[in-house]
Amino acid sequence: MQLLQRGSYVGCIGFSVAGRPLVLPVNYIADADGIVFCTAPGTKLSALANGIQVASEVDASIPLYHSGWSVLVQGTAREIVDPAQLEYLRRGPLKSWAVRPSEHWVRISIDEISGRRLREV
Amino acid sequence: MQLLQRGSYVGCIGFSVAGRPLVLPVNYIADADGIVFCTAPGTKLSALANGIQVASEVDASIPLYHSGWSVLVQGTAREIVDPAQLEYLRRGPLKSWAVRPSEHWVRISIDEISGRRLREV
Repeated sequence: MQLLQRGSYVGCIGFSVAGRPLVLPVNYIADADGIVFCTAPGTKLSALANGIQVASEVDASIPLYHSGWSVLVQGTAREIVDPAQLEYLRRGPLKSWAVRPSEHWVRISIDEISGRRLREV
Repeated sequence: MQLLQRGSYVGCIGFSVAGRPLVLPVNYIADADGIVFCTAPGTKLSALANGIQVASEVDASIPLYHSGWSVLVQGTAREIVDPAQLEYLRRGPLKSWAVRPSEHWVRISIDEISGRRLREV
């Protein structure tokens, strides 16, 4: 949870559209309840907004030492529609590099979380 | 293809196990025919070795400039069983940080490839 919350702010979201897996990068923030990211309308959002199962992966690596860590979250994605939550999210602290904060927000619940660390060799 | 082949050697593989999406980091190499990675026996390999649909995502980012790029490949994963190919792969050039080269190798075909670049703001 600590690595998820403080170790990075770029992660991958994996899900299936019509049975085909898809993995897309997002800027995210994580709190105790899950992962939140911002997205523009389109395939990604329309697939994610309906309570589908998704995976979220976050990692960091140090190539010189062949070391790093990764965190995998499996959960359910739902669009955030509560106006108070949206207001809070649109004021920050997450600034997506690709999407204006006025766009749609999606929360992924943490149903299962696991991780792996590769120590320096 | 150039970014896939030269821009990184750590990527994510997304696929579903029993209907649940999963995203895992791998060290990979890419050639004109696809993406190749090395894996230890277990859930990941047993799910991937049967010709299932997978997604592979590779990215790089420059946080200071909120810029970066990502490449998404959608394809089919199959275990490599040809002895000559395995011999070639085990001699390098891919050195997985986590898995010994004697382990199983999987190739992902490139059925569809797309990408995105965020310029410096």
